[in-house]
Amino acid sequence: MTDTASQASHYYAGLDIGGSTVKSALVDSHGQSTGAMTEVKSHVKDGYKATFGQLQKSLEELAKMANIQVSDIKGVGLDVPAPNCDGVVWTRANLGDDWVGTNIRDELTKVLGIPAYMTNDGNAAALGEYAVRPDYDGGILLVAPGTGLGGGLVLPGGKIYEGSNGLALEVGHISVPHREDDGELPACSCGWKGCAEAWVSLVALRRRVGLELAKDQWKDHPLNTDDLTIIEKAFKLRDYAEDGDELAINIFRQQGQILGYALGDLVRVFDPGMVVIGGGLAETSENFRNSYMGWIQEGFIERAWPAYRHSPLDPEHVTTHFEWAKGGDYSAALGMGFVAKDMFGNLSWNRAYPDFKD
Amino acid sequence: MTDTASQASHYYAGLDIGGSTVKSALVDSHGQSTGAMTEVKSHVKDGYKATFGQLQKSLEELAKMANIQVSDIKGVGLDVPAPNCDGVVWTRANLGDDWVGTNIRDELTKVLGIPAYMTNDGNAAALGEYAVRPDYDGGILLVAPGTGLGGGLVLPGGKIYEGSNGLALEVGHISVPHREDDGELPACSCGWKGCAEAWVSLVALRRRVGLELAKDQWKDHPLNTDDLTIIEKAFKLRDYAEDGDELAINIFRQQGQILGYALGDLVRVFDPGMVVIGGGLAETSENFRNSYMGWIQEGFIERAWPAYRHSPLDPEHVTTHFEWAKGGDYSAALGMGFVAKDMFGNLSWNRAYPDFKD
Amino acid sequence: MTDTASQASHYYAGLDIGGSTVKSALVDSHGQSTGAMTEVKSHVKDGYKATFGQLQKSLEELAKMANIQVSDIKGVGLDVPAPNCDGVVWTRANLGDDWVGTNIRDELTKVLGIPAYMTNDGNAAALGEYAVRPDYDGGILLVAPGTGLGGGLVLPGGKIYEGSNGLALEVGHISVPHREDDGELPACSCGWKGCAEAWVSLVALRRRVGLELAKDQWKDHPLNTDDLTIIEKAFKLRDYAEDGDELAINIFRQQGQILGYALGDLVRVFDPGMVVIGGGLAETSENFRNSYMGWIQEGFIERAWPAYRHSPLDPEHVTTHFEWAKGGDYSAALGMGFVAKDMFGNLSWNRAYPDFKD
Amino acid sequence: MTDTASQASHYYAGLDIGGSTVKSALVDSHGQSTGAMTEVKSHVKDGYKATFGQLQKSLEELAKMANIQVSDIKGVGLDVPAPNCDGVVWTRANLGDDWVGTNIRDELTKVLGIPAYMTNDGNAAALGEYAVRPDYDGGILLVAPGTGLGGGLVLPGGKIYEGSNGLALEVGHISVPHREDDGELPACSCGWKGCAEAWVSLVALRRRVGLELAKDQWKDHPLNTDDLTIIEKAFKLRDYAEDGDELAINIFRQQGQILGYALGDLVRVFDPGMVVIGGGLAETSENFRNSYMGWIQEGFIERAWPAYRHSPLDPEHVTTHFEWAKGGDYSAALGMGFVAKDMFGNLSWNRAYPDFKD
Repeated sequence: MTDTASQASHYYAGLDIGGSTVKSALVDSHGQSTGAMTEVKSHVKDGYKATFGQLQKSLEELAKMANIQVSDIKGVGLDVPAPNCDGVVWTRANLGDDWVGTNIRDELTKVLGIPAYMTNDGNAAALGEYAVRPDYDGGILLVAPGTGLGGGLVLPGGKIYEGSNGLALEVGHISVPHREDDGELPACSCGWKGCAEAWVSLVALRRRVGLELAKDQWKDHPLNTDDLTIIEKAFKLRDYAEDGDELAINIFRQQGQILGYALGDLVRVFDPGMVVIGGGLAETSENFRNSYMGWIQEGFIERAWPAYRHSPLDPEHVTTHFEWAKGGDYSAALGMGFVAKDMFGNLSWNRAYPDFKD
Repeated sequence: MTDTASQASHYYAGLDIGGSTVKSALVDSHGQSTGAMTEVKSHVKDGYKATFGQLQKSLEELAKMANIQVSDIKGVGLDVPAPNCDGVVWTRANLGDDWVGTNIRDELTKVLGIPAYMTNDGNAAALGEYAVRPDYDGGILLVAPGTGLGGGLVLPGGKIYEGSNGLALEVGHISVPHREDDGELPACSCGWKGCAEAWVSLVALRRRVGLELAKDQWKDHPLNTDDLTIIEKAFKLRDYAEDGDELAINIFRQQGQILGYALGDLVRVFDPGMVVIGGGLAETSENFRNSYMGWIQEGFIERAWPAYRHSPLDPEHVTTHFEWAKGGDYSAALGMGFVAKDMFGNLSWNRAYPDFKD
Repeated sequence: MTDTASQASHYYAGLDIGGSTVKSALVDSHGQSTGAMTEVKSHVKDGYKATFGQLQKSLEELAKMANIQVSDIKGVGLDVPAPNCDGVVWTRANLGDDWVGTNIRDELTKVLGIPAYMTNDGNAAALGEYAVRPDYDGGILLVAPGTGLGGGLVLPGGKIYEGSNGLALEVGHISVPHREDDGELPACSCGWKGCAEAWVSLVALRRRVGLELAKDQWKDHPLNTDDLTIIEKAFKLRDYAEDGDELAINIFRQQGQILGYALGDLVRVFDPGMVVIGGGLAETSENFRNSYMGWIQEGFIERAWPAYRHSPLDPEHVTTHFEWAKGGDYSAALGMGFVAKDMFGNLSWNRAYPDFKD
Repeated sequence: MTDTASQASHYYAGLDIGGSTVKSALVDSHGQSTGAMTEVKSHVKDGYKATFGQLQKSLEELAKMANIQVSDIKGVGLDVPAPNCDGVVWTRANLGDDWVGTNIRDELTKVLGIPAYMTNDGNAAALGEYAVRPDYDGGILLVAPGTGLGGGLVLPGGKIYEGSNGLALEVGHISVPHREDDGELPACSCGWKGCAEAWVSLVALRRRVGLELAKDQWKDHPLNTDDLTIIEKAFKLRDYAEDGDELAINIFRQQGQILGYALGDLVRVFDPGMVVIGGGLAETSENFRNSYMGWIQEGFIERAWPAYRHSPLDPEHVTTHFEWAKGGDYSAALGMGFVAKDMFGNLSWNRAYPDFKD
């Protein structure tokens, strides 16, 4: 009663398309990782057809690693680094021109002959954090400070929250009432004013560093004497902070507090049960992360009612858990594979047996 | 605040592939018929690519009728007149050679660029009966005597029951213990013996007519004097029965009773709540249908415990309802459209608005 | 083959518990209204057991109206006017003392012998708006200015979004950066500062009226000469606005604009597809509602990117629809009945037939 | 950030009510066993209230074992050894009189204050086999020869198939065309004739033993000389078979072949992917089980088309797997706990965190 099951095997692939590479991962009919993962160039600037070639190459590599046929892959989940709705990219971002306005999802379905599901990279990252916590099936709100401030929300059970037009979870662009010394809401790179991202992002950090170093107080600070661009100074700031430099710590404290304040508003409307902090901060030293999480808590407490921290009836019952991101490089790809299985795993009843070992 | 919604409209098509034609129907994002239906040649003998051309033509006609774009169709459900599993036809039936062994579902997905779901014609017919009963959401067991004895089962809520290999609901080939006058179980066209279809089908009817007319009792029966083939005689039998001819009635009574007996076993394992009788019988005169339903009941009562007719606690609570099929020519296509919507309606969150009328 | 179905009928009740009355409604096994609705005193101040008596009375009245047995009701959905989590009320609000800390849901289940689902009144109101739009199955974000600023979110398909602790959708308490003339964020009745509710609510209106009337500009305004309390003045303000009074219009314009601004942030994270404005404003004259909706749009445009109004690829494709609430007095009860059916409708397979009319 | 979670913990109990004892098991919010299991007397003859007392005792013991509160148990699944529909037992079986006609499910819900789901013991046993195969999520058809011939069907994903009136899967009472030496269909204890159970059950074995021992061929067989009742002889038959006795082997071979034949019909309509053989046979020696499985296969091959054994396109792809039951004494209870979690696990969003270990 052996079963080679060459014909009925069901696998699903997650394809995480980034600006420079595509990371991909293969999951089985239970949505679990098969261990097969691979990374290839994405060629996104060369038009979507160039990328599609790389996606096909990825599927071939995954199939080879897992010792299956490409035709055993019954669905794919892909994410792209741009807002998209119903398979259509709405904004160019860093992609080649022809990505916008084309139904990428349907074109890929045509090329591969298997159904595809598509979302944006913030959602995929949140799904990745969900996928790497197999014992948890509650909600997850991910916020990831990086060049900007991205994020995503996974509902209990592993569904992503995308909104009606794929435009939900623009967590970086909710308002905070904080003002610059001149009393103004700071301009955000989105063109609006007063967004959280105008305080919590690499772009914001550069503005902040420039403004602070111009102050008399810091005229002797080494960063003022270094012959560095503002971009280089912003990059060096974290090292200063890890070494206990007062200026650097002041700047990160303010950033963390404002992130916590914004999270107060986000938790007030989402009540996700768990907030995961991603982005580059998740890879700093444990010591720095502990300090930073403390600043987030200071801001959070300033904005969120006590009930968002613990139950009024039982102080030991934590209502919002905070964690650092722990998904590795392939977590978004795994998350998209999980979604593909969830979405297309019922194309036939006989989805289960081949993975079953006697 | 008008909404032309040209871009986000979501429709689903059902494609009912028969031996000679493809009937197709378009449903909206609520799974409701749009009214657009069309029929084209199926060209199944010319290979599946010939049929794919006809399917594309069908989608174009449906889109034109409904004043939408083909790209607004977000998924298709198709049924083929042959056993199939996970997109692959297992047995040639009346199809061209290249249908067998190919993943028809995935090939069609590649051609259309939208995901497809595929099942067999018995399942589609059962879904059709479900689709034409919008106020009912319980289970339906369809049995349809025709050339053979086909059927299908719809679960409450509208899911089809296909089994692990697409081989479920071979209702025509369950055993009945009835024997011929020689004490043998009759041979069935499937190669096995004692199947219900060996008694309840057009093929069975021909054998029965031949056996009966050879008896001395009917030597003066007009069918014995007619210069007709056995096939023609079998076809004429229904007219005789409608006119009260004793031989014809005897034959149909036996057929109906054995069908009822087989339904006793099927209801015992499925307890579907509703049995729908389809096939050509559903189009006979009301008078004949009433007689035939009575014979079915006689056989059913012989086999099914009283609880399968009414609750032991409340005699007025009917446990198994019997109805005649009422789906028209396009009901299987509508059923497949409904399934496509159910399966692919969640490819994006924003599935709802375009059909909403202010 | 008649079916009195006295035994297997399945119905579900929605129980909308308010400060003074309980409104209830009965839905059938398809989640559709049966037409049976009733209202009784809620007696919430007298302890939850007093209210439970009223709920039982409500079920008896509903059953009588629909000519069914109380035992045909297979589940209830109830909402209470206080935050609650997993059946337990967390904050007293206007309820009697013993409501807090008790598992109201489980206690009611014990009394009725059928399962109960419980949520808060904002969620129920949102479900009500969903229930009265049978042709729409997308998401709905409800915001309802009243004494405070409440709301709720229904996901596509009719699931309510409650959050991990039942504390989601506190839409009235997200930040807006608007400041008083003194440069301060206004205090909110929740004890925090800068909440939207501090600008958009009856409480906020009273503060606003007091501040404005103290200004020299309005010293001759009739409201300054009337011998009315501030509460009475606030109530009269809408009549003044409907008559074109400049002060009143200024105040409501600011309120509407800030509500629109807050909605900009909410839509940015929820992208619900539809925003419904409820509360007392929904019952003002069409003329005033048109003006008010215009002010909301002015604020919304100031905060939300253009993509949240229409697709960048198709200006006619509206991405966020705005509507006034249209649910009547029993819409929350109907919404809770719908939820109860959704939640408990699968307690047995045989849920469907009794409502099916031959 | 510790979380005692005393308040929000979610557990579910399975209660397997047998003729003499209640076996119960506790599962967590992921449907996984907590390890807590207990067995108490069932007192079913003393009326259902006596049994309810034992169920409450069981829940208390489970809670104590798992170090939780009884109030942390958010739903129960129970099975009773009698046909039941929508909470109402239809046939007395071995239960006390007052079990019939009462809505046991709703009464228990009233006593416990948490929702209950109820099904019969055959379904529970099938769920148990599903629960003990965590790596498998396809369908399972269980047939369990014992005093009678019971069974159940689990759909892929773990839903039980109950039918519209809870009367599905009476697998013991489908027809087989086999006849006694006198040419008659044997009488079944259900009152009908020709059921599979009339050949495959302990009751059938007794008849068979009596008929065979009366034959001249076996007049010197030790069982004919033993001073034993026919019941005792039937019980001893398995030992004889294990020792290679020709009569015993003949009888079991016929039984196994007819069981296989009946499975041919069942697989033809259910195509479950996996058939599990339970009952006492599952506990015989490996040697005897191997022989018996061979006889089942002989009967199965006689009735089921080759496609029900392996794919016509790939002989190595097995279409119907046969396994022996491997669930232990508590598997039905675990299965019912799994069902309770599946059914009631969404009573609140916050179902997940308490089981999550940092």
